[in-house]
Amino acid sequence: MAGTDTSKEFMFRPTPAIVLCEPQLGENIGTTARAMANFGLWDLRLVNPRDGWPNEKAVAAAAKALPVIERVRVFDTLAEAIDDLNLVYATTARNREMFKPVIGPDEAADRMSAHIGAGQKAGILFGREKWGLNNDEVALSDAIVTLPVEPAFASLNIAQAVLVLAYEWRRAALKDAPLPFAGDEGEPAPRGQIVGLTEQLGEALDRAGFFKTDAKRPTVMNNIRAMFARAGFNAQEVRTLRGVVAALDRRHERPNPARLRKNDDEQ
Amino acid sequence: MAGTDTSKEFMFRPTPAIVLCEPQLGENIGTTARAMANFGLWDLRLVNPRDGWPNEKAVAAAAKALPVIERVRVFDTLAEAIDDLNLVYATTARNREMFKPVIGPDEAADRMSAHIGAGQKAGILFGREKWGLNNDEVALSDAIVTLPVEPAFASLNIAQAVLVLAYEWRRAALKDAPLPFAGDEGEPAPRGQIVGLTEQLGEALDRAGFFKTDAKRPTVMNNIRAMFARAGFNAQEVRTLRGVVAALDRRHERPNPARLRKNDDEQ
Repeated sequence: MAGTDTSKEFMFRPTPAIVLCEPQLGENIGTTARAMANFGLWDLRLVNPRDGWPNEKAVAAAAKALPVIERVRVFDTLAEAIDDLNLVYATTARNREMFKPVIGPDEAADRMSAHIGAGQKAGILFGREKWGLNNDEVALSDAIVTLPVEPAFASLNIAQAVLVLAYEWRRAALKDAPLPFAGDEGEPAPRGQIVGLTEQLGEALDRAGFFKTDAKRPTVMNNIRAMFARAGFNAQEVRTLRGVVAALDRRHERPNPARLRKNDDEQ
Repeated sequence: MAGTDTSKEFMFRPTPAIVLCEPQLGENIGTTARAMANFGLWDLRLVNPRDGWPNEKAVAAAAKALPVIERVRVFDTLAEAIDDLNLVYATTARNREMFKPVIGPDEAADRMSAHIGAGQKAGILFGREKWGLNNDEVALSDAIVTLPVEPAFASLNIAQAVLVLAYEWRRAALKDAPLPFAGDEGEPAPRGQIVGLTEQLGEALDRAGFFKTDAKRPTVMNNIRAMFARAGFNAQEVRTLRGVVAALDRRHERPNPARLRKNDDEQ
């Protein structure tokens, strides 16, 4: 889904921090940065990344998510990375048997939105590729966030988990904001145009002998009126349909040239 | 987020079809299959894939998402691929200036959930990596779905867009279903245990000379009661805290051995 608007500046709104604990692969840091940028997140913090920082593979995989990559901060310990946050969620796919609430991404986003809206700071922890977060890292969090995955196929990579959380964040934070572009459904046609179309069709159907008895006509025409009303045609569509009806209506007056030729061939 | 439960069978529930129009890279078909399986989708349809089918790169990238990969169906045209669907959404990141409603993934998922719940079939179209869907493909859909991306960084790959739609589908379809695992927060302790803890703490603070005047004691203790009530401690946590208070309380009676040794060294 290409569609980046290069005339737009990245908006550095207050958003949750994404904290990766000891990420192993630079590629995953890069795709995480990209997933964050897609939904307007920019505060990426790395705890003790295996291959150090900066990391060429991360930059390559970030697909120009520079607003994120340029602002990456690296910390020696998780405690330092979350020092300024007053709401911290830990993502995990496994039950930790800890006394922690477990919530979904939607609830996490709603809570973070209220929290950040009140001027506080929030963050989400993601664990290592191979075994996730340690229990003492989870213990530093306020709650566990888990995704409503299919239990038989629960393996998400870090960037995918970040993508879902970032998406939910943006949905919650911009609840009533418009989508990036709006549909142009056109104004529904004024009712008079629909009546005109229906009448034109009725007369054409009369000429075509469509109504077996006069008694049936009002019922059938009412059904057609109901269909047209429900369809919500706009003015352009009504004009198109009037043209269609006119063309079909006239077909009995002016034989189709193609059909004529075919008959010629048959003779 | 590793966490696949190999004892669980993939649940082939009625779900939307995912239709990829002329996908170019096998890797993207594979990562799409994986994103689908994560959230329980399994009906993947390919229209005229550039490199044919089956595709080794797709299988490798699918990371064992066999429930999806084994069921892939290939079609020559989009019309054939969506022949049996009675609700079709087209994903696009660009305004098409078509008379189509534009909705978000949440609304699309809610509508598909109601539709599929009523026994009908739905599907979502995704376009080519390079330029998405053609206008005549979008025209076959009931509405356009677009993601609430950051306009300055709107480029999502196919599997990421599928992941968000699949996540929203599962969220809508399993609205009241539990998450894959639940938190064990423990039952909140009976109020009497909280009262006991508070009284023990009050007495210890009396011994420590914490209250400067007797007049301040009730206010301070009420603040502590309020804190404890809000914290929602469970019985185990109350026991731990009573132990902590008892230990601090006794510290003035029994000097700390470590502290003693340190004093020895200093002498």
